[in-house]
Amino acid sequence: MKHSRLKKQIDFIIEVDKIKQILRQNHLIDNSRRENDAEHSWHLALMAMILNEYSIKKELDILKVMKMVIIHDLVEIDAGDTFAYDKMKNMDKVLREEKASQRIFGLLPEDQRDEMMQLWHEFEYMESEEAKFAASLDRLHPLMHNYKTEAAGWGNHVITRKDVEKRNQHTRESAPDLWKYIEEIIEEITEKGYISKEDI
Amino acid sequence: MKHSRLKKQIDFIIEVDKIKQILRQNHLIDNSRRENDAEHSWHLALMAMILNEYSIKKELDILKVMKMVIIHDLVEIDAGDTFAYDKMKNMDKVLREEKASQRIFGLLPEDQRDEMMQLWHEFEYMESEEAKFAASLDRLHPLMHNYKTEAAGWGNHVITRKDVEKRNQHTRESAPDLWKYIEEIIEEITEKGYISKEDI
Repeated sequence: MKHSRLKKQIDFIIEVDKIKQILRQNHLIDNSRRENDAEHSWHLALMAMILNEYSIKKELDILKVMKMVIIHDLVEIDAGDTFAYDKMKNMDKVLREEKASQRIFGLLPEDQRDEMMQLWHEFEYMESEEAKFAASLDRLHPLMHNYKTEAAGWGNHVITRKDVEKRNQHTRESAPDLWKYIEEIIEEITEKGYISKEDI
Repeated sequence: MKHSRLKKQIDFIIEVDKIKQILRQNHLIDNSRRENDAEHSWHLALMAMILNEYSIKKELDILKVMKMVIIHDLVEIDAGDTFAYDKMKNMDKVLREEKASQRIFGLLPEDQRDEMMQLWHEFEYMESEEAKFAASLDRLHPLMHNYKTEAAGWGNHVITRKDVEKRNQHTRESAPDLWKYIEEIIEEITEKGYISKEDI
């Protein structure tokens, strides 16, 4: 290929195929197996299309939300999936993912590398309403799956109601109607014993 | 859930999880297993983000392209994956998929059902430059995978050079620089014997 810009782009597109092998804790809704990062990211993009009306921002930039959710887990190709409720592994997560972002987005032409880094950081640090909404979907999605699979994705981990509330808390302000739905789920999974009512 | 609009949207989001079980002919680039529709759709959305500059339309509506590729295979939940080069199965594909679209998109509130049907039809019939570009990515993606996996996705099917050229031909006009890349791949996979030089 003579076109070096296109070559870089194709190399990146081929490299990130590896995300299909990064398994998450979550199970598919039919509970047949664990979900991978590509499937999860696809589902978030669909959710962004369907649920964007619930963001408090009236003129939400849906394209930006979709871009964020499509790329938000690419760093896990190098850094691996870090279970949200694993406090130990979350301690060095930032460093591992930062290094990964430099290698993976670094495969792209400079302008696109910079755009991807910017989108990813904006998402990670919830620096805009778009990022907050994307993060709400990213938290709601596994909650829905665990709700439907009798918490298969939480396995032997002991998760408390407080953990789940904390992880979803920003949705209370950024998408209040989704927060009401999340509250209903939390109520039900607490009653069913999927999560612990009391702090440990 | 009291909110009936949100309930419909959530039911739809949960139902379409099934797309993660719809296997395509293609293999992952590491050749470990077949790819599913969710993974394929995720990859197309990423390609739309990275490769949109190659569309002949200068002000391409990238959001529309991304929406199209995210939903383009949802009908396969009911209609199954139809291998592009299987002439027999392609004969009743339209009817099977039309019926599927009504059930699946019909789970949504009416306004969103109509938007999804419109997007899907626009894509299927390549009614806009956005649809043509989305279709280019949809054809290029399996070609890249087959190129990288020694045509694992084509298995025992005999595919001719003419078949592949025909399937990608609209890219010649809608994304000329991508077409040049496709021509290079076709040349190489013909030389390597992955596809047949002669018509059968």
